[in-house]
Amino acid sequence: MDLDFINKLIKPAKTKIVMIVMDGLGGHPIQEKGDTELEKAYTPNLDSLASKSICGLQLPIGSGITPGSGPGHLGIFGYDPINYQVGRGVLAATGIDFKLEPNDVAARGNFCTVDQNGIVNDRRAGRISTEKNQELCKKLCENIDIDGVEVFIETVKEHRFLLVLRGEGLSGELIDTDPQVTGEKPLEPELKSKGFDKTTDIVKSFIQQAGEILKDEHPANMILLRGFSKKPNWPSFPEVFGLRSAAIACYPMYRGLASLIGMELLETGQTVEEEFKTLEENWDNYDFFFLHVKKTDSYGEDGNFDSKVKVIEEVDRLIPKLMDLNPDVIIVTGDHSTPALLKSHSWHPVPLLIYSKQCRPDRVEKFGERDCITGGLGPKLPAVEILPIAMANALRLEKFGA
Amino acid sequence: MDLDFINKLIKPAKTKIVMIVMDGLGGHPIQEKGDTELEKAYTPNLDSLASKSICGLQLPIGSGITPGSGPGHLGIFGYDPINYQVGRGVLAATGIDFKLEPNDVAARGNFCTVDQNGIVNDRRAGRISTEKNQELCKKLCENIDIDGVEVFIETVKEHRFLLVLRGEGLSGELIDTDPQVTGEKPLEPELKSKGFDKTTDIVKSFIQQAGEILKDEHPANMILLRGFSKKPNWPSFPEVFGLRSAAIACYPMYRGLASLIGMELLETGQTVEEEFKTLEENWDNYDFFFLHVKKTDSYGEDGNFDSKVKVIEEVDRLIPKLMDLNPDVIIVTGDHSTPALLKSHSWHPVPLLIYSKQCRPDRVEKFGERDCITGGLGPKLPAVEILPIAMANALRLEKFGA
Repeated sequence: MDLDFINKLIKPAKTKIVMIVMDGLGGHPIQEKGDTELEKAYTPNLDSLASKSICGLQLPIGSGITPGSGPGHLGIFGYDPINYQVGRGVLAATGIDFKLEPNDVAARGNFCTVDQNGIVNDRRAGRISTEKNQELCKKLCENIDIDGVEVFIETVKEHRFLLVLRGEGLSGELIDTDPQVTGEKPLEPELKSKGFDKTTDIVKSFIQQAGEILKDEHPANMILLRGFSKKPNWPSFPEVFGLRSAAIACYPMYRGLASLIGMELLETGQTVEEEFKTLEENWDNYDFFFLHVKKTDSYGEDGNFDSKVKVIEEVDRLIPKLMDLNPDVIIVTGDHSTPALLKSHSWHPVPLLIYSKQCRPDRVEKFGERDCITGGLGPKLPAVEILPIAMANALRLEKFGA
Repeated sequence: MDLDFINKLIKPAKTKIVMIVMDGLGGHPIQEKGDTELEKAYTPNLDSLASKSICGLQLPIGSGITPGSGPGHLGIFGYDPINYQVGRGVLAATGIDFKLEPNDVAARGNFCTVDQNGIVNDRRAGRISTEKNQELCKKLCENIDIDGVEVFIETVKEHRFLLVLRGEGLSGELIDTDPQVTGEKPLEPELKSKGFDKTTDIVKSFIQQAGEILKDEHPANMILLRGFSKKPNWPSFPEVFGLRSAAIACYPMYRGLASLIGMELLETGQTVEEEFKTLEENWDNYDFFFLHVKKTDSYGEDGNFDSKVKVIEEVDRLIPKLMDLNPDVIIVTGDHSTPALLKSHSWHPVPLLIYSKQCRPDRVEKFGERDCITGGLGPKLPAVEILPIAMANALRLEKFGA
């Protein structure tokens, strides 16, 4: 089901949809026959909501596929993550709240270490500190000079930085210069189509100047670039679905993703409670709210089962505040699973509930992975189907055909 | 999800995957409210494994579609059986262990009976004995003479034989000469594109000579040909999935299928116990093992419910030997269903379990059709998704996107 198809069916309504995304929500037992994080959490409010909802597990990309944060979110926003791929450069820009302009070319950079022959012997320059990175970015910014192109070099974290080239007629279709292995020289900039154009010359010049500027530094004496890309020109979420849409998220990456598809970004605080407060304050002005909870994922990545449980319980305690607003449709899910057991994103389907007065509830009485298997949405609903179902429940879709 | 997509995500690991295929595993009760063959079988080891696994029913091709052995296996190996079709000629060659060369054209032949006007009145020549078939094949081989082409004629069984033409520039794109009905003449060889080329002349000459040689035989006085095809040039399973892959099967057809996609064939015995022994002996040398059990299907085809149950129980008794090897991922399924009730392959989805330490088990405690319906893999997992899920569980896939 593509966005055009849905777009042709939208009709106006006054209903409101809230999508709560607990990042990395899906989990895994840490002992045989044990509970997952969500099953273990004490969630009377989510359970009560689940009992009035249609439940299931959703599959962000496909069976066995572990999603990155970009594809994970695009899927639940209704954008097929295989057709709508974000370049790493663009993602790095969104991750530090850098506002890309339509012609900008972004790349993700690594500081690295090369020997006297230019051979890479550490692709991450010993994971230098973020402070050192800032110092080096400043030095590069002050000294790089490329005719006709504005160059931005911004610290991301540790050895990682963002490069943005701003100018006319630049191409985003360049190969990575990162050889991906040590013991080799960085690759020469060229187009993916194997040719060269003025962008490849500009990138060559940038790399050559960077090498000069960094040559006496240690260990960060060179740079590697990958994921050259331009801001994609995708259909706008508010237009496709006919929803005045707002994003409530405190991490730049998720704000950036929401912004890429045209959601408005609301100012909010660092806690989940503050995020719910932002929702309340802006209730009248939007039809769709994306509320992002980061720490479920962070604790999953840390392997911290108990703290992930606690974040879920914190969200649960805020559900009554949401119910007080009387939303027409509520979606609760994650962008992917991050089981503490694996300390990483994983391929496991993600718990999902969709509540409305007309959702035709199933027999699920508890919001948890094993309960959701038997829910009405099934054990592997493609994530891109969530938005159409939510739109239907919001009575915002016309019937198809006569 | 295509093979290219998966291939781009593979990463190296030391994990091992074992796929046990009980041919025709899925069954059906023979009386109202009764058990299926698998439900009836006493399978404490498979049940214990199921309780630690994620379970479901898999759909080899699509809803309502009954698979042949070729498509049934290709699906569980991750090859979409609708896109990857094996010609009947090639399948016949694999079925008798005939080693096709890349330019060979294979066809499946039937001995048939024609009247004095060349009208087919028995497409199977009264299902002549295999011995008679051998005698006729020998006679054909000794007498057929076609310039520039090497001709192989090999007995399959009863009225069926294999024809292989070996020469330069032959086409496999010929229509069947078998009219599929009695009361008509065999069809003239022509290309599927309606034209003629040297292959059609060669086949015409072959048929004309065969008619001469067989004219005094009764009832097998003519031949019909179908399924002209060349050995397909498909992606190699070991390369696509990055797995050193071995097949343990005693029937030529399944060895042939595994060999078509590049698995190594291990020497083994005729019993399931010997097959498990082969698995044990070769444990260190491969990452993926396909272990094929034939007799579940054979007894299903015979309508022998009880003997099919016994074969399943025999496999169950060997499961502890498998567990002793400590495999990282275990898949147990079939290539299709063969209910004794129907005495044939059927369209019913096939029981499936996938075990690993990170499979996120569901609530299924028993390996059987009705239990698997409520499993985490759902009641109709497309068979081609089994391998990606197994690869994920073997921690052999990178995440998609950042």
